[in-house]
Amino acid sequence: MYRTHTCGELRIEQINQTVTLSGWVQKARDLGGMTFVDLRDRYGITQFVFNMETNAELCDKARKLGREFVVAITGKVTERQSKNNKIPTGNIEIIADKLEILSKSAIPPFTIEDDTDGGDELRMKYRYLDLRRSCVRENLVLRHKLGIEVRNYLDQLNFIETETPVLIKSTPEGARDFIVPSRMNPGQFYALPQSPQVFKQLLMISGFDRYYQIVKCFRDEDLRADRQPEFTQIDCEMAFVEQEDILDTFEGLTRHLFQKLRNVIFDYNFPRLEYADAMELYGSDKPDIRFEMKFVDLSVVAKGNGFKVFDEAEYIGAICAEGCANYTRKQLDKLTDFVRKPQIGAKGLVYVKYNEDGSFKSSVDKFYDAAQLQKWADACNAKPGDLILVLVGDKSATLTQLGELRLEMGSQLGLRDKNVFKPLWVVNFPLLEWDEDSQRFHAMHHPFTSPKQEDFHLLETDPGAVRANAYDLVINGVEVGGGSIRIHDTNLQAEMFKHLGFTEEEAKEQFGFLMNAFQFGAPPHGGIAFGFDRLVSMFAGIDSIRDVIAFPKNNSGRDVMIDSPSTIAEEQMIELGLDYRKK
Amino acid sequence: MYRTHTCGELRIEQINQTVTLSGWVQKARDLGGMTFVDLRDRYGITQFVFNMETNAELCDKARKLGREFVVAITGKVTERQSKNNKIPTGNIEIIADKLEILSKSAIPPFTIEDDTDGGDELRMKYRYLDLRRSCVRENLVLRHKLGIEVRNYLDQLNFIETETPVLIKSTPEGARDFIVPSRMNPGQFYALPQSPQVFKQLLMISGFDRYYQIVKCFRDEDLRADRQPEFTQIDCEMAFVEQEDILDTFEGLTRHLFQKLRNVIFDYNFPRLEYADAMELYGSDKPDIRFEMKFVDLSVVAKGNGFKVFDEAEYIGAICAEGCANYTRKQLDKLTDFVRKPQIGAKGLVYVKYNEDGSFKSSVDKFYDAAQLQKWADACNAKPGDLILVLVGDKSATLTQLGELRLEMGSQLGLRDKNVFKPLWVVNFPLLEWDEDSQRFHAMHHPFTSPKQEDFHLLETDPGAVRANAYDLVINGVEVGGGSIRIHDTNLQAEMFKHLGFTEEEAKEQFGFLMNAFQFGAPPHGGIAFGFDRLVSMFAGIDSIRDVIAFPKNNSGRDVMIDSPSTIAEEQMIELGLDYRKK
Repeated sequence: MYRTHTCGELRIEQINQTVTLSGWVQKARDLGGMTFVDLRDRYGITQFVFNMETNAELCDKARKLGREFVVAITGKVTERQSKNNKIPTGNIEIIADKLEILSKSAIPPFTIEDDTDGGDELRMKYRYLDLRRSCVRENLVLRHKLGIEVRNYLDQLNFIETETPVLIKSTPEGARDFIVPSRMNPGQFYALPQSPQVFKQLLMISGFDRYYQIVKCFRDEDLRADRQPEFTQIDCEMAFVEQEDILDTFEGLTRHLFQKLRNVIFDYNFPRLEYADAMELYGSDKPDIRFEMKFVDLSVVAKGNGFKVFDEAEYIGAICAEGCANYTRKQLDKLTDFVRKPQIGAKGLVYVKYNEDGSFKSSVDKFYDAAQLQKWADACNAKPGDLILVLVGDKSATLTQLGELRLEMGSQLGLRDKNVFKPLWVVNFPLLEWDEDSQRFHAMHHPFTSPKQEDFHLLETDPGAVRANAYDLVINGVEVGGGSIRIHDTNLQAEMFKHLGFTEEEAKEQFGFLMNAFQFGAPPHGGIAFGFDRLVSMFAGIDSIRDVIAFPKNNSGRDVMIDSPSTIAEEQMIELGLDYRKK
Repeated sequence: MYRTHTCGELRIEQINQTVTLSGWVQKARDLGGMTFVDLRDRYGITQFVFNMETNAELCDKARKLGREFVVAITGKVTERQSKNNKIPTGNIEIIADKLEILSKSAIPPFTIEDDTDGGDELRMKYRYLDLRRSCVRENLVLRHKLGIEVRNYLDQLNFIETETPVLIKSTPEGARDFIVPSRMNPGQFYALPQSPQVFKQLLMISGFDRYYQIVKCFRDEDLRADRQPEFTQIDCEMAFVEQEDILDTFEGLTRHLFQKLRNVIFDYNFPRLEYADAMELYGSDKPDIRFEMKFVDLSVVAKGNGFKVFDEAEYIGAICAEGCANYTRKQLDKLTDFVRKPQIGAKGLVYVKYNEDGSFKSSVDKFYDAAQLQKWADACNAKPGDLILVLVGDKSATLTQLGELRLEMGSQLGLRDKNVFKPLWVVNFPLLEWDEDSQRFHAMHHPFTSPKQEDFHLLETDPGAVRANAYDLVINGVEVGGGSIRIHDTNLQAEMFKHLGFTEEEAKEQFGFLMNAFQFGAPPHGGIAFGFDRLVSMFAGIDSIRDVIAFPKNNSGRDVMIDSPSTIAEEQMIELGLDYRKK
């Protein structure tokens, strides 16, 4: 037997018991004639004492232990002289009388401690050692707990977790598919699912009524910092529901998760914001509403003063930064640099300081006097001491830029506390968005999303104005989940495909089985999918999803630990009927 | 709102309530001036009544409903005149006063009833309709419940469910991998996991202590009736354990599942059988012990009587079929045909009837007299009325053949009741098995399985005799799970690879990261994996795993519903740097 207890288990109550513990040597130190060994496992750390006077041979053996050696130690639990209040086992120590080395360890390439000296790349290569650090492992324990609570909640509501296939069919719509050559059907390929969308809709047609799945999905996209080629979704679908039913159900799930995982209780209904308003007020379809600082349109009060840039602008938008009138020249220059960054792309930044003494100082003093700036201040609800920041230009671009500036100011003012959570629903997304490259409309959510009935009549005349029964759950500026009420009518679905530029043949080729299924009695249905990795990282209070995935890939889609992807044997290529393409 | 209640919910208690239900029209029938509509959803069936006298227009509308139309009907709950005790809602019916058609249905290609007229292929093509049949859906509900109970049990024992990657690295060992070309790393490939074996071992090295995952695995094998290219495992691993700890823990899981899902309680410890004994007594490493009929070696009593076939045989094995002495000539001929089938391959069958009157009648009366046959009967513990069946030949082949014959006799005698469950552990599997094709040893379980310490010394001299710390859980002749205690020592692992015919370079190339990991303090560890699909089918009492998978593939690995695999666009091939190989 390797152990009678774990390293996190023993307390004063066990004093005088003889116990055996197994684990990793966290550290060993000699003090006078004694050697102290901290033994670590997933459950905690326990201190062992070896005594040179009473058992020299054993103590000598303990002195030769290196960090990360795996050992089993037997001894008697005793009360500790100098208690350690920082750890739950800190009131006891174990007087060792047997020590077995189960496994030696080379010197690890970085220290296995929360505060490690290992760089990103090294820790990725030795991910199995990185995972020994309790701060990393705790993220994965949290992930496990999130899975439990999601299932508890949905199971109790009669959702059926149903596995959908991983080897499916490639569709050119949406992101790029990973494909899998079929050996038994040469020249043909499976694709890995970007989501189980079609299958969950089929399950609704099957009468499953309520479906969910915590499921791996795959996208062969060029990776950004916070994207992984394989990621996990909480995928859900319900039949006989309207948008309101979905929002209710999954607001409930969200409340449940916050209560169980963070002990946060929301004593209000999650606010709802129209997509159009979100763009107008926050310049984003995923606004961070931990702070106000809504946009104010200054067009009316700021135009017509001979300042050409303003007079000719499609849009003049302002935010009011409370108490920032004292910003220095240098601080303001930095903000200007910020909005001018290529990824933001504003041309410049106009500021108005509403000084404590009621006076104004602005970067446009040449064109506007105090009375005029007072009108700006009034429009912005600014008080003396506040700073008004203004961006102008093309409306859509300026809204986005102002949104970025707003987030930056929120951060500078400390208004984005990771321990404060502000959820909201963004609703009524546009059905379609215009794609400049292909000069056609794309589905904003996906081609199965239903248009709002009251906007039907615009589908032919003004497709861009049609709103969808689509919604996102946004928390602290992060899109945590999104979904829609689906089309459940063959004719409407066919019309949608037409608007998305599919020929009838293409639609049939790719989604024929779904269109067929609609002909046999499809119930009204809708659903939502949550980004599981992102939810975990939010609950863990960390920014990157990579830290909540046991074995993540890097930005080139490589797993540097196992060195994958890699070349394969020529015979495998032959079996699959494949060859490398000549350049 | 589409419904106030489900179709399985209403009882006498709701009488006089006005309700709205939504679902599929199971059937509609006219009776006098009334029309009765059975409305079905996942939860049940409820009867609606339309009355031509009181509301002709509505009743007319109801008469036009076809099977599988999706409708919402509102009405008042009333007590039924002629109650239907077969369904839980059979005491009530609903007097309809509103009917909305949500979705029409074409005539389904087969009847949506438990007893359907649809053939296998048709039902697979329209799987979404097949899934409407409650007998099919119930299998998937059972699957869902099994998942819940597995998780409940393991969560409470501190196992952490951890997702391991799906895009991993191809290894030529074992079955064939599915591969996934990497666009970002041209000429390189991921592989889909045949199991998360290496990752779960790394998690043990990471100190996760107890891991599990209900996880999809993939094998590109030629498919037999009961195999799928993607299948689901309950994958588990524990650190600081010996074989006994694993058997205890997962016997506990198995008991829990049987109790929760089938209300079966085992009031005994699962028997343990050495692999060698299983082969010797049942001719199988997964014996069905719902019935005895153990093999008896007749070599001693049957040799030396001048019957050349017996005298020269390596092995003479018998089973005793209770009460079958009255088998007719025709029945015995059929048994002979059975053992002679190519997939069984015996040359012939010897029988001895131990008649009720104490006399013998055998197919070898020429060589053996009654006294001699009495000795056979004694060896077999046969009683008057029993039938002794004997196979001879090469030992290993004959054991297997006799095993098949035993199962056949068990079936003929009705000893294999699907509602009786007899679990056992088969332990101490051989470490290696000789492969004639490649003329080398293969790992019987996998290359990470540890040999029994007491057999270490045979590794060089008699590798085939080395036993492993490997075990299978067998229930009713089905291998439900299997696992092993792993090697956790670099040197031993390197030696294993050598015995398996890997060069040092190949071992490093394929498993270098695991070998590396062993150098940093690997705990003793072991695990087990259960076939989730097979477990569900066992609990559901059905033979094929295909029936417990929502969207299975056929024997050619095709999903005939979505028509996958399929061709892909030339641009995809170009992006991946791939071409079709010329013949």
